[in-house]
Amino acid sequence: MKAINVGLLGIGTVGGGTWTVLTRNQEEITRRAGRPIRITAVADRNLDLARGLVGDTVKLTDDAFALVKDPDIDIIVELIGGYTTARQLVLEAIANGKHVVTANKALLAVHGNEIFAAAQKQGVMVAFEAAVAGGIPIIKALREGLSANRIQWIAGIINGTTNFILSEMRDKGLSFDAALKAAQQLGYAEADPTFDIEGIDAAHKATLMASIAFGIPVQFDKAYVEGITQLQAKDIRYAEQLGYRIKLLGIAKRKANGVELRVHPTLIPGKRLIANVEGAMNAVLVQGDAVGATLYYGKGAGAEPTASSVIADLVDVTRLHTADKHHRVPHLAFQPDQLTDFPILPIEEVETAYYLRMRADDKPGVLADITRILADLGISIDAMLQKEPDEGEDQTDIVLLTHVAKEKAVNAAMAKIESLDTIAGKVTRIRLEELNG
Amino acid sequence: MKAINVGLLGIGTVGGGTWTVLTRNQEEITRRAGRPIRITAVADRNLDLARGLVGDTVKLTDDAFALVKDPDIDIIVELIGGYTTARQLVLEAIANGKHVVTANKALLAVHGNEIFAAAQKQGVMVAFEAAVAGGIPIIKALREGLSANRIQWIAGIINGTTNFILSEMRDKGLSFDAALKAAQQLGYAEADPTFDIEGIDAAHKATLMASIAFGIPVQFDKAYVEGITQLQAKDIRYAEQLGYRIKLLGIAKRKANGVELRVHPTLIPGKRLIANVEGAMNAVLVQGDAVGATLYYGKGAGAEPTASSVIADLVDVTRLHTADKHHRVPHLAFQPDQLTDFPILPIEEVETAYYLRMRADDKPGVLADITRILADLGISIDAMLQKEPDEGEDQTDIVLLTHVAKEKAVNAAMAKIESLDTIAGKVTRIRLEELNG
Repeated sequence: MKAINVGLLGIGTVGGGTWTVLTRNQEEITRRAGRPIRITAVADRNLDLARGLVGDTVKLTDDAFALVKDPDIDIIVELIGGYTTARQLVLEAIANGKHVVTANKALLAVHGNEIFAAAQKQGVMVAFEAAVAGGIPIIKALREGLSANRIQWIAGIINGTTNFILSEMRDKGLSFDAALKAAQQLGYAEADPTFDIEGIDAAHKATLMASIAFGIPVQFDKAYVEGITQLQAKDIRYAEQLGYRIKLLGIAKRKANGVELRVHPTLIPGKRLIANVEGAMNAVLVQGDAVGATLYYGKGAGAEPTASSVIADLVDVTRLHTADKHHRVPHLAFQPDQLTDFPILPIEEVETAYYLRMRADDKPGVLADITRILADLGISIDAMLQKEPDEGEDQTDIVLLTHVAKEKAVNAAMAKIESLDTIAGKVTRIRLEELNG
Repeated sequence: MKAINVGLLGIGTVGGGTWTVLTRNQEEITRRAGRPIRITAVADRNLDLARGLVGDTVKLTDDAFALVKDPDIDIIVELIGGYTTARQLVLEAIANGKHVVTANKALLAVHGNEIFAAAQKQGVMVAFEAAVAGGIPIIKALREGLSANRIQWIAGIINGTTNFILSEMRDKGLSFDAALKAAQQLGYAEADPTFDIEGIDAAHKATLMASIAFGIPVQFDKAYVEGITQLQAKDIRYAEQLGYRIKLLGIAKRKANGVELRVHPTLIPGKRLIANVEGAMNAVLVQGDAVGATLYYGKGAGAEPTASSVIADLVDVTRLHTADKHHRVPHLAFQPDQLTDFPILPIEEVETAYYLRMRADDKPGVLADITRILADLGISIDAMLQKEPDEGEDQTDIVLLTHVAKEKAVNAAMAKIESLDTIAGKVTRIRLEELNG
């Protein structure tokens, strides 16, 4: 069969990886796809760099807007990133009847509804396996592999930078700042790491997974996002002593009255498989009503792992290129007219367990005051850790793990505890998930 | 759109689970599939049992051969198991233009080539996600999610019964027989556990994965199969002391001159995520050249987990029901005319590392004799464990871990070691895989 022609927008890390893998495995990929898949045009601002990689065998341009209109191109791969130009290019490609494969989680988490609607109208596919968890085929698993299930929740380590930092903090007892510096030196964190360390990148990915899992539009603006910048080495240590690890999780959970969609540092039991996902690796744990828990683990970033997902999408799109709409898997797993307006719950309505650390005077009655405040608000205590005061100090750290409570109640409790004369400063709060189905 | 009508052959554990999940999640599955998927007929020898489950709402028959010809049925779900009747029914269903979904790994591992060829000729699909690793969507991951990759190897814990037994042996220091009894009492092992404990079930699954990964026909008869019945509690203990766990792995590995396809107890480093898969859980580790290592974990058996995969296949088949052949994913991942005759290597040609345990006289020179034999055959030693003789004994256990060597050389070394006067009885050999890419 006739080859499929791919136009590549952006030939940086992932674009270069896509070129490399597609070239290296051309024969094997063709044996699977049933026809050759070829990058026949590349748009990049840096033409010299592009030429250095792909030579003179493909059309090279610095005009991406011309490429998305090129009648010879069947599929556009968007690897430019960002919200603005990428959005225009993707919409333009769709308007020109091109299928789109993208790794751009930010774009889809923010403008996904507009883009998927445009694609639906034009009868083209927008595939985005590479947008979540790099090389792990988690979009396919959620959208197709688990289609029998009512998905109950998803909890994922979906940002390698922060997982690397947290692993370093735990392994080496480093502060956040020191671990970030190590991550930057090793290339695991960018010079401006804001998107990663503030949890925004993870929230983009969690937003996409929530849509697919629950059949709701993408709603990044409703996600609760808390990064790891405030995390202290001692919290990691105390958590460890209580049998927990701290991971930055992207969580999407179905509740009776809506969906919890949140990214924050989370205590999870150390014995869970996902607690042992270290360094820059990613893993997503999915709870379905029929299948129970399944876990998907692998590299969440990098040139070739991400290219692996881009090309898997290219193979899928190639296969269904000329198929009818109803032969294709819907973009967000559910048929476009079957999405619901099941609301995203505000963080105050979230129900989870909590780790609360406070600095308290080391004298009788303090603990009684704290537990009274919690009890009055209906919050029950699961475990406690009280440290001996350091020599010469008359204050000590108290750590409490609560049972599941409503965030609103915990906010109220924290305010009351902080107002006690015997408590110094703020209460540190980290959410806790047992992840046990 | 018009509902898809499914005929169910066998309404035992998995069949019952399929009915239950499809009924419970009907609305959500329809929202995904775009049309209702309904079990409209059931064939089972036990009509009373079937009626008790599905009531009078569906056609009930004890004549499965009539059902596979029923013109009202679009897809046949085969959950009878076994090679003989199941084969006839599946071929008959295909001949009648029905798509087939099956959980029958034995059937496909042995008669897959015949069945897939018949399906190809008739233009129907045979889907079998449920045949490997229960609810884990591993077939989809291998066949579609990793289609960019040259798969290098697969190593899977793909039999829950044996993994449960091995976990019990390690946790509680039980003998194999005691652990098997515990597994039977808890329903994790059948009254006749041969297929599981002898590794045959795992080999069926490994055979299917090898075909999909490497683009070769199914060749169960070429698989090397060794179960866990000879495993001693002390080997699990010694392995632990050396930093390893023993798991029954199904391994498929691409080598320059062919494919290794083997099932046997295997030492794997205790720090690997897959080493910590306990009880009846399954996990498959896949190494691809682009993506690196990815791991898939979940329940490998049970009514609803297996039903999860059966129904995911039903949704896929429903979607592509009326599509052209080239819109569909090939049965064995590669286009049917693109399978190769890349050979399965005989076990003597396998290259791996080894755990060797022997009972030796506790006197000078013994170790020198053993290491000389190994060195002469080009086998180098990675680690050694020598126990003090128990009180009153003049023999002791010596455990050696070798670097990677050819099985043939290790066989020769074992024979020579066993012929030493200072060695009592046979050498125990367990293969070892580092699983590090």
